[in-house]
Amino acid sequence: MKLALIGVGMIGGSVAAALRRAGAIDRAVGFDADPKAARRGVDLGVLDAAAASVEEAVREADLVVLAVPVGAMREVMAAAAKALPAHAIVTDVGSTKLSVIEAARAALGAASSFSIRRFVPGHPIAGRELPGVEHADAELFRGRLYVCTPIGETNAEARASVESLWRRIGAQVVTMDPAEHDRVFAAVSHLPHLLAFALVARIASEPDGERKLGFAGAGFRDFTRIAASSPAMWRDVCLANRAALSEELRGYRALLDELQRVVDAGDAAALEATFELASRTRRRHARTFDAE
Amino acid sequence: MKLALIGVGMIGGSVAAALRRAGAIDRAVGFDADPKAARRGVDLGVLDAAAASVEEAVREADLVVLAVPVGAMREVMAAAAKALPAHAIVTDVGSTKLSVIEAARAALGAASSFSIRRFVPGHPIAGRELPGVEHADAELFRGRLYVCTPIGETNAEARASVESLWRRIGAQVVTMDPAEHDRVFAAVSHLPHLLAFALVARIASEPDGERKLGFAGAGFRDFTRIAASSPAMWRDVCLANRAALSEELRGYRALLDELQRVVDAGDAAALEATFELASRTRRRHARTFDAE
Repeated sequence: MKLALIGVGMIGGSVAAALRRAGAIDRAVGFDADPKAARRGVDLGVLDAAAASVEEAVREADLVVLAVPVGAMREVMAAAAKALPAHAIVTDVGSTKLSVIEAARAALGAASSFSIRRFVPGHPIAGRELPGVEHADAELFRGRLYVCTPIGETNAEARASVESLWRRIGAQVVTMDPAEHDRVFAAVSHLPHLLAFALVARIASEPDGERKLGFAGAGFRDFTRIAASSPAMWRDVCLANRAALSEELRGYRALLDELQRVVDAGDAAALEATFELASRTRRRHARTFDAE
Repeated sequence: MKLALIGVGMIGGSVAAALRRAGAIDRAVGFDADPKAARRGVDLGVLDAAAASVEEAVREADLVVLAVPVGAMREVMAAAAKALPAHAIVTDVGSTKLSVIEAARAALGAASSFSIRRFVPGHPIAGRELPGVEHADAELFRGRLYVCTPIGETNAEARASVESLWRRIGAQVVTMDPAEHDRVFAAVSHLPHLLAFALVARIASEPDGERKLGFAGAGFRDFTRIAASSPAMWRDVCLANRAALSEELRGYRALLDELQRVVDAGDAAALEATFELASRTRRRHARTFDAE
């Protein structure tokens, strides 16, 4: 099977490396908007060849993996649509699904030789803060969730092929409605990123910010680890999932408004009730997280 | 030197274990409101004896370490004041300083035999999520900061003794004004705890909360690790440092109000500017945190 990888970063590189290690592909061609990234992929043995364009990369592919930031999906899909073989399967690894599906309907749906029925949207729940194909890891997906979010058009054979590949590289496959996916990940991923970015940005913008950061301990370190993530990627994710994120943020702000009243009033019982619910819940889930 | 440890938990137990390993004490007596905790401290070899009351614990002490939740400081200080030897030094490890100092002025300042001049307030920046003396660690403070926040009354000899003990157990000693301490830790510790508790409590209170948590990944795990902390301890900390926390929370809420407008308006540049400032700052400090 020939793989075309569009977007040669940490996630995309890990997919290619994992598929190769599993013996699922016999050739991998990559394209990245940054030609150095694709060449690094070749140098690292993750790719067999670097393509000069999306069209060149997908021309002979059996499987196309779109691993670009979600804000760039529509553009690469439009380029791919011009050259995709009719038998190819196209899948993506984007962190938001409704926006990617909308892009696919518009760009891939307009392709003359390719059918949207062969597009399988999905999202592997795995990552590292370190960007770039040099941090690709063939074992990244082992034991992690792969959320498949097929649309009405997706045909069963294409979906089964994609799910089977994720299982071969160690992922646990679950299926989810794309709209539910976006609501769930707005709550457990996109909002936490925005909150962590906001906390660090706020401290950094204060005159004594550097002094404050000098006293930060392990709790701050863990809470803000995701604030080191790529600003461009997360800008894209937050805007691509704007509707669901906006609703989560609104609900969270309402709770903070309430907690401000509780703190100002010195209402120990109300504060403890919120902390207690959180602590009990987080401890109950500790094993789930540690298993990762 | 005889140590009286008031509050036999993870932090207090670590102080006693570290002082013993350093050869700085030859006897450690502990009191805890929960008699089982003090007995566990004896069983674990952290303490030589469990006292039945604060008064009994401090009666023959050269050094008294107060390691109870900040909300309980005033009560244990009032009890200690009845029995403290005149030569003893009293120090605390509370996460807030103005409230503890206010309690000390009221309770220790009223003691007949003991002078407030021998009270040295301080705060070691180290911890683990796991509570209880069974998680005490003699190496917990090695390479960590100890923030000494002496007051006008504190005499130089008492302060030097306490700082010297922290150095002997591996901590790096810094001095800070108590009011500045409370502002700094409201920003880098107390607010993040409140935000993490709030996020988990919000998800837990939703009908589909458990389903959402089932999809949480490594980012959520790290962001919410501090939400597993003790609800009672953090209720106390947040209320003890209410003025500074209230101000930090107000400022953070104003930034979230702004980010809600930015997300709703789809303002990519403004969103990226905030994320970029945060990411740059967090990456620059990554080495500081990792060194911990």
